Amino acid sequence: MTDIYKLYPKDRITLREVGLRDGLQMVTQYPSTAGKQEWMKQEYASGIRHFELGSYLPKDRYPMFADIDDLTATIDALPGAHAAALVPNLRGAKNGFASGVAELQCVVSASEAHNEANLNCSQETTLRQIGDIVAQRDAMENGPIIGVGLAMSFGCSISGHVAPKSVLDLAEKCYAMGIDIVSIADTVGYAGPHQVAHLTTEMQRLAGDKHFGVHLHDTRGMGLANAAAAMGQGARVLDASLGGLGGCPAALNATGNIVMEDLVFLCETSGFETGVDLEALISVRRILDREMPQEPLYGSLAKAGLPKAYPYSAEPQNT
Amino acid sequence: MTDIYKLYPKDRITLREVGLRDGLQMVTQYPSTAGKQEWMKQEYASGIRHFELGSYLPKDRYPMFADIDDLTATIDALPGAHAAALVPNLRGAKNGFASGVAELQCVVSASEAHNEANLNCSQETTLRQIGDIVAQRDAMENGPIIGVGLAMSFGCSISGHVAPKSVLDLAEKCYAMGIDIVSIADTVGYAGPHQVAHLTTEMQRLAGDKHFGVHLHDTRGMGLANAAAAMGQGARVLDASLGGLGGCPAALNATGNIVMEDLVFLCETSGFETGVDLEALISVRRILDREMPQEPLYGSLAKAGLPKAYPYSAEPQNT
Repeated sequence: MTDIYKLYPKDRITLREVGLRDGLQMVTQYPSTAGKQEWMKQEYASGIRHFELGSYLPKDRYPMFADIDDLTATIDALPGAHAAALVPNLRGAKNGFASGVAELQCVVSASEAHNEANLNCSQETTLRQIGDIVAQRDAMENGPIIGVGLAMSFGCSISGHVAPKSVLDLAEKCYAMGIDIVSIADTVGYAGPHQVAHLTTEMQRLAGDKHFGVHLHDTRGMGLANAAAAMGQGARVLDASLGGLGGCPAALNATGNIVMEDLVFLCETSGFETGVDLEALISVRRILDREMPQEPLYGSLAKAGLPKAYPYSAEPQNT
Repeated sequence: MTDIYKLYPKDRITLREVGLRDGLQMVTQYPSTAGKQEWMKQEYASGIRHFELGSYLPKDRYPMFADIDDLTATIDALPGAHAAALVPNLRGAKNGFASGVAELQCVVSASEAHNEANLNCSQETTLRQIGDIVAQRDAMENGPIIGVGLAMSFGCSISGHVAPKSVLDLAEKCYAMGIDIVSIADTVGYAGPHQVAHLTTEMQRLAGDKHFGVHLHDTRGMGLANAAAAMGQGARVLDASLGGLGGCPAALNATGNIVMEDLVFLCETSGFETGVDLEALISVRRILDREMPQEPLYGSLAKAGLPKAYPYSAEPQNT
């Protein structure tokens, strides 16, 4: 199995580009395979190493993910790049295992009502399926990393409040069944930084040596404040998408994923080195503009430009 | 003199609406006096109590501020409401004293180059003028509170890096000459939360029992993360504008002030009670849309709506 400590080093921030999956989940217009490949290659060149490529879903209903195996091959050819893909069910896992993708992402919702609505079964059934996927992986000689995203970890658009304890119980079950990385997800952008700091602290305690991630949406403008709160409490794996591509499943026309460019700026100004060339990253937006001219792109840094004298590290801040 | 501890209670957050001044600083289209009055009254009804009304500038060149005395009278008629106005120079202060406005705001830049460019004189000259204004106020029987905003406290679009020490030295001089409240301002939106937390901690230490404020812009998407960082380190007075009205003087088309609605949401989800009815606050945006149809309004909460089961306090978060 891939060495997870090498892919997700504990002593630095890992930024995962999820625009190719979460960003394209609800669009009607999507980039060509060549466009996606150019996007990934240029974002890789700017310094990003982790890419979620798509989801193993029926190609006729989800044509935006039909080229997932081509994209996996593209990432595999880039030294140090890491591909992940969403598996919505056992069939998806079978495709994932066959593709040789380095990481499979499963989903269970922290809200029973949302799990029923989204996956058409109970949390218990979903957990059992995830257990089966882990068992299949364990029987392989060189199986992928398996992650789980806990949707609605900060509140649910169907049932409202989600108790942190129910999130932590699910996370504990996932780790116990052999999941390598568990991510808490603010699927509909309900959280504020206080709540994020609290749950991150608990996740950090629960995870111990294991890995956890934080998947934030900017639906209510708290995305970067929440990211800062998460990093402040030990989160080292964060998801984002270039230009904030993607919407919110529960609020039409609202923003979705936090903006990768702004997140990199947050990290760099917070003393977390990302290795990302921000100017180069911003310029990758041109590919999205060209390939998906009707999709709005978000992000303040791309509009305002970098501050004068950035990076600040050239001049000491604390004098 | 007005009791500043009553106007700016140390044990809760004070949110200052600066859209009527900072928000209108660079516009060509601005609300009618009646529109401004309706805006203030409705925002007051939603729970906001502090309003910066304009600037004492020549009426022919700054017609958007020509009605400042009318607006002062409107605020004075609202129980518990507090009016502040910018005074760019000694003549402005004279008008301010005559108007009876409760608080005058002076400005000095933390960057010498920007002070020269903005105020056409050295920091030393500006400080001397501020000292004169304080002396005039002290000679009055019931003079206004006097505040100072330290522009470019987190970096300057002309000279780049601004040393925290130079900001703190200026703040110390201001307090020493009798200034009641000193605000650190991220005029061009250069700061990240790490930098804001650091300078806020130092300001808190320097201010002691005195008051300080934090004026943030969202130019590079860090506005709310910075607000969270400031509040986390003891800041209790924050500026914002409805719909994020206002631009950035150094980046055309970029966003300016942090969005009041989103800031209220940040406060409430962080355990800082604001007393603001968020739905009512959001509905005030209609007045701006009507009065200034060409001005873009920002803010995520107004687009996405409040989360289900908000306010969360109805259900305990930590279970």
